[in-house]
Amino acid sequence: MMSAHEVVAAYWDAAETRDWTKFADLLAEDVVYEAPQSRERVRGRSAYVRFNVDGFPGQWHLAVERIVVEGRHAASWIRFSGESGTQPGMCFFDLDDHDRIARITDFWPDPYEPPSGRAHLAERY
Amino acid sequence: MMSAHEVVAAYWDAAETRDWTKFADLLAEDVVYEAPQSRERVRGRSAYVRFNVDGFPGQWHLAVERIVVEGRHAASWIRFSGESGTQPGMCFFDLDDHDRIARITDFWPDPYEPPSGRAHLAERY
Repeated sequence: MMSAHEVVAAYWDAAETRDWTKFADLLAEDVVYEAPQSRERVRGRSAYVRFNVDGFPGQWHLAVERIVVEGRHAASWIRFSGESGTQPGMCFFDLDDHDRIARITDFWPDPYEPPSGRAHLAERY
Repeated sequence: MMSAHEVVAAYWDAAETRDWTKFADLLAEDVVYEAPQSRERVRGRSAYVRFNVDGFPGQWHLAVERIVVEGRHAASWIRFSGESGTQPGMCFFDLDDHDRIARITDFWPDPYEPPSGRAHLAERY
């Protein structure tokens, strides 16, 4: 029996290794995925596996920066490396009573220039 | 003595109420803030309080969507409402041995249009 932390780690490991059977096993039958930035929503395990298999073509790899789990809630911060470079990604997960992933909220922040008004308040790196 | 979860909740409460004394008390003396999207970095408690006091002018409010804490690591997802609308924000925190916030990594994802190639794989909301 995996801990909730191990479930989220296994989710990213299954995605990285394209082990879609293992990936599907970690999901609740009625999993709901939402990407608030693009307002995309995917409902159900098979639709969500298909979204991952078919929705991200090309070469890509991911590495976990941080997984944080508290009770049935989890957050992850990953580094996604694809053909257009490397980008951070954040997910918030809700797990069901069987430690399956029931809800995923996904965020992909892009680079931006800081407002000039706060240039004196921070260094750049 | 606050739990690590309570420390992160108090951090957002202090920001929302502009209680900068309470806000400062939650931070390690050598706190480091980084915003990977803008590559801004702020080092030290007093500089980081000033960044918050002076760096975000105008009316704004925030509401916590989720706080997840595991050991010395935490993640939060907030809703920031300012003059240009409402935006989600994610932070990853590291706490020191005294449960003070020692490291903050801050992300602000913007809306985007999904790639057309996956339109058949997700609904829009």
